Amino acid sequence: MPMPREITAFSNPLVKETRALRDKKHRRETGLFMAEGLRILAEAHEAGHVPVTLFFGTGTRHPLLDALVAETEAAGGEAIETNADILHKLSGKDNPQTVLGVYRAFDLSLAGIDRAAAPLWIVAQALRDPGNLGTILRTGDAVGAGGVILVDDCVDPFSVEAVRATMGALFTQRLAHARWSEFLTWLRAGPGQLIGTSLQAGLDYQDPAYAPPAFILVGNEAQGLPADYEAECDLLVKMPMLGKADSLNAAVATAVMAYEVINQWRRKA
Amino acid sequence: MPMPREITAFSNPLVKETRALRDKKHRRETGLFMAEGLRILAEAHEAGHVPVTLFFGTGTRHPLLDALVAETEAAGGEAIETNADILHKLSGKDNPQTVLGVYRAFDLSLAGIDRAAAPLWIVAQALRDPGNLGTILRTGDAVGAGGVILVDDCVDPFSVEAVRATMGALFTQRLAHARWSEFLTWLRAGPGQLIGTSLQAGLDYQDPAYAPPAFILVGNEAQGLPADYEAECDLLVKMPMLGKADSLNAAVATAVMAYEVINQWRRKA
Repeated sequence: MPMPREITAFSNPLVKETRALRDKKHRRETGLFMAEGLRILAEAHEAGHVPVTLFFGTGTRHPLLDALVAETEAAGGEAIETNADILHKLSGKDNPQTVLGVYRAFDLSLAGIDRAAAPLWIVAQALRDPGNLGTILRTGDAVGAGGVILVDDCVDPFSVEAVRATMGALFTQRLAHARWSEFLTWLRAGPGQLIGTSLQAGLDYQDPAYAPPAFILVGNEAQGLPADYEAECDLLVKMPMLGKADSLNAAVATAVMAYEVINQWRRKA
Repeated sequence: MPMPREITAFSNPLVKETRALRDKKHRRETGLFMAEGLRILAEAHEAGHVPVTLFFGTGTRHPLLDALVAETEAAGGEAIETNADILHKLSGKDNPQTVLGVYRAFDLSLAGIDRAAAPLWIVAQALRDPGNLGTILRTGDAVGAGGVILVDDCVDPFSVEAVRATMGALFTQRLAHARWSEFLTWLRAGPGQLIGTSLQAGLDYQDPAYAPPAFILVGNEAQGLPADYEAECDLLVKMPMLGKADSLNAAVATAVMAYEVINQWRRKA
């Protein structure tokens, strides 16, 4: 049975390779990304994702860590004991987590999405902020959505910042990425209600009856949805905006909309 | 009539003083903070806040800028024309906004809050993330809340990051800061329903009837509300959490709760 080996040299090739996963280019070339912290690795573990490489700080003791080490080695990966300096170098954080896993990036094609698997899906167009992506994935988990479909140029879900912000929901929610035209073709090939929110809409978001599978479409943080994207929506609704600014954070608008949809369904159930 | 003077030297004392407002200590000593960008300064302008000092990039032309220059000078402040390098130095951003204002920090005492001025208020306990504060202030604006009361050790609302994240709602929403005991004393000296959200609550958040003035209490991002804070709530409710993680972003939970409250009131109206 393999045993964790210890690495303490900054110059170790595996340390360099892992650290390089902070760059998008290197993530794309290797098909790998990193996730930090027992909480996030626990979600990965429960969702069946096994690390390719596992780093943990000397002296870290936790039943889950034992399980992670065992599954990593059983799958042919390597578990590596190391020190706080190396963990800091890997994560770039001043107070690094004591556990860090390298994972294979998921397939982000629409073919991987089974729309019948959940009544609700979130579609985010040109979403740029890793924090917003994380918040939307967590919201998706909370409302029982199947996952998030990223449309057009979005933040990389495998970036260190995005992975952190998802707090594990990256592993429990399905993710896909597509161009708008590609998404529309896929959507219209099956059942699905595309629901956009717009400040210009005349329809109050509490008025229509939402039906599964419902796809909530949220636009870019600064620009909102392009007009021709709004035109493709089956329902275009507006939330009450009682203030001066007429703007909500994109992740907040998504959540308010998603809770309305599931509240309707709860009342019928 | 005064005219904007031009500053192009990094060593200019006013440039140094303004740049120092990125530090909390200096903000506290001077009672000043900075806000960037025409959008945010427009909100400040509409809410009646006049800059103490106004910086704008050479060649910037905008009707609002003319108004800002005029009101700044009329109030005895100074409008300063400068270049992109100085604006970059002031804001710390790679692509600085072309307009930057220095403002007097607001009075954050509870005495400044007139609870009768709005049906809804948001109370945030130990909120640490400037992005969340910004999102909550924007949500407050959208739902017609009067403002946000910060309780215990929270992010500084006058930090550059927080001001940016509020996108102007800092100027349109009332803000206060107090210790918990101080807040409770103030709250119980008048009418008010304190509504906490908790994963442990038995009551669904759509079941109670909410009454103005309603105070939505949101806890720290990582810990949630302390148990003894929950015990002080008039209503402790839970949102449906259908997923694996049992956690929502603090700003998202606030918004979902706030929209439920105003939706109830809309139905009655």
